[in-house]
Amino acid sequence: MTSQRVTITDVGPRDGLQNQPKILTIDERLMLVRAIATAQVPRIEVGSFVSPKAVPAMAGTDLIFDALAAQSSFQTPTVALIPNMKGYEFARDAGAEAVTMVLYASDGMAQKNAGMNMSEAEDVTVDILRQANQEGIQVIATIAVAFECPFDGPTDPTIVQRTVGKFLQSEVSQVVLADTIGAADPQQVRDLTSTLIKSHGGERLGCHFHDTRAMGLANVYAALESGIRHFDSSIGGLGGCPFAPGASGNVATEAVVMMLEQMGFDTGIDLPLLLDASDLAQTLTGAVSGGRSKVWLQTQLQKQAL
Amino acid sequence: MTSQRVTITDVGPRDGLQNQPKILTIDERLMLVRAIATAQVPRIEVGSFVSPKAVPAMAGTDLIFDALAAQSSFQTPTVALIPNMKGYEFARDAGAEAVTMVLYASDGMAQKNAGMNMSEAEDVTVDILRQANQEGIQVIATIAVAFECPFDGPTDPTIVQRTVGKFLQSEVSQVVLADTIGAADPQQVRDLTSTLIKSHGGERLGCHFHDTRAMGLANVYAALESGIRHFDSSIGGLGGCPFAPGASGNVATEAVVMMLEQMGFDTGIDLPLLLDASDLAQTLTGAVSGGRSKVWLQTQLQKQAL
Repeated sequence: MTSQRVTITDVGPRDGLQNQPKILTIDERLMLVRAIATAQVPRIEVGSFVSPKAVPAMAGTDLIFDALAAQSSFQTPTVALIPNMKGYEFARDAGAEAVTMVLYASDGMAQKNAGMNMSEAEDVTVDILRQANQEGIQVIATIAVAFECPFDGPTDPTIVQRTVGKFLQSEVSQVVLADTIGAADPQQVRDLTSTLIKSHGGERLGCHFHDTRAMGLANVYAALESGIRHFDSSIGGLGGCPFAPGASGNVATEAVVMMLEQMGFDTGIDLPLLLDASDLAQTLTGAVSGGRSKVWLQTQLQKQAL
Repeated sequence: MTSQRVTITDVGPRDGLQNQPKILTIDERLMLVRAIATAQVPRIEVGSFVSPKAVPAMAGTDLIFDALAAQSSFQTPTVALIPNMKGYEFARDAGAEAVTMVLYASDGMAQKNAGMNMSEAEDVTVDILRQANQEGIQVIATIAVAFECPFDGPTDPTIVQRTVGKFLQSEVSQVVLADTIGAADPQQVRDLTSTLIKSHGGERLGCHFHDTRAMGLANVYAALESGIRHFDSSIGGLGGCPFAPGASGNVATEAVVMMLEQMGFDTGIDLPLLLDASDLAQTLTGAVSGGRSKVWLQTQLQKQAL
C-alpha cells in the first residue's frame, strides 16, 4: 500500500509571529523561514501584507520575499496573507506565488478583523480572485471562525457550508476551515468536514487548528478521518490571533508531522530538521515552545543518535 | 436526545503520584483524594499496595483507606492497584471496594514491572478474581503496554485481543487497555478498540492514555468513536510509570472532562471544582500541571465569575 500524502503549510512565520510579544527583525524572520524550508515543509506562509500599525510584527514582509527571491536555492512555495485588494497588489509585486485571503463565518469577526461584514469580505475575495487568475497567482480562501467566534459565539455550520460551496465553484486553489480561537472539538470537526467532503470532495479543502483547549491533534485526527489531507500548522506551536481574545498557539507542526507519520501518512518532512527549526523559533521569540510532544521527540532523536 | 454517560476513574493519587519526585505525606494524599471526590469524579484509584521499597510514594495506602472509611461523608467508590495476591489481601483488609490488577501485553514489561511473564500474571489474576468474587470485591484488569512496550517494542494486537477475550468471559468488572508509555496514535486506538467492541461490546471496556506524544485527547476521541465509555485520567495530568522509560503524565482529567462535556457527553463532574483539585495537585507536588487546557479553562471560569 502506498502511504497517503498529507500536505502541511507552516504558518508560523505569519500566524505564529504576529502574536508574539517580541517583534523579530527581517533577518530573524528570514532565518526562521529558511529553517522551516530546510526541513522540507512543502509550503510556508512567510508573512502578511497588512497595516504595519495594526500588526507591527509583519512590517517589511516585502523584504522577506525579496531576499527569498534572490536566493536561487530557495525553492519552497511561499504564501502571503492579505486582507484586501491593496494587500493583494503588495503581495503580487513582492513575488508571492500564492495569497491567503481571509473570509469570515461571522460578521462580528469580519468587522473586528477587517472592518467589513462577511458578504463584503466575499466580494473583495471574488475581485482578488479575478485579478489573481489573470496574473497567475494562486488564491487560498481561509474561512476564519469556522467553528466559533469570540464575538458572535458558536458558528452556524450552514454559513460555512455556503461559503465553502461558493468558493470551491470558483478558481481558488484551496478553501481552509480555520478554528481561529481553538474552540472546536473533534466531533464538530468530524461533522462539518464529512458534510463538506460529501458535497465537494476533499481535494481542495484544508483545516487550520489552534491548540487553545489542547484538542488540536484530536481535531487533526477527526478531519483526517473525514478525508482532509491539507493542514496549516505552526512551527513550535507559536501562534494566536491579535484580534481574537482567547486564541492561543496553532497546533505545532512537529506534533502534527509526528502523528501523521506514525499513522502511516507521508508528509515529506524531515522531522529532526523540523525540530531544529522549532528550537530556532523558540530561541528567536523567547516563547516557550508549545510543541507539546517536543520533549518526547527530542529524547527519541537523542536515543537514535547514540 | 439524552446525553450519553462517560465514566472517569481518576488515577492521579496512584498513577500520578507514584512517579513524582516529591513524595507526599498521607495527609497530603488524602487532601488530594478528597478534592477529586468533591468534584464528583465517580471513581478514584486512591493508591496501590505494592512494595514501599519499589514505590515509596505509595507507602501507607492502608492509612488512606482507613481515613476515608472513617469519614461518613466520603461516598466515592475507591480502587487500589495491586500487583499480586498479597497486594489483594492488603487491599481487601484495608476496605477497598475494587482492585486493579495489572496484566501485560509483553513479557518484557511483565518481567520488569512484576517479575513474572504475561501468562503468570494472568494466572495470578485468575486466582485473585476467584477470591475477590467470594469476598464481594470488584476486579478491574488493566492490560499494560497494550499498544507499545518500552522493552519489547510495538505490541501484537492479537495478544491484547486474546487477553481481553479471556478476561471479559470471567467476572472482572472491567478490562482497561493501558497505553502505559503514551505511544499509541489515534488510528491504532481506533483499530484495536473497534475490533474489540465488535467481538465483546463496549460495556466493560475502558482505556487509559498518557499524553507523552501529545496525542492523549486524540486517542480518547478515537476510542469514543469506537464506543468506549470508560476512561482513566489523572488530575492535572500528573503521572508516568516508574518502570517504563519515556512515560510521561496521564491525560489530564480536566482536559478529558472538558472535551467530553463540549461534545455533549455527561461525565457528572463539576469542572470548576475539578480545576481546584488540579491546582491542589500542582501545589502539593510542585509539578507544573500537565493539564494543557487549564489556562484556557481558568480564563473562561474567571470570565463567568465577572
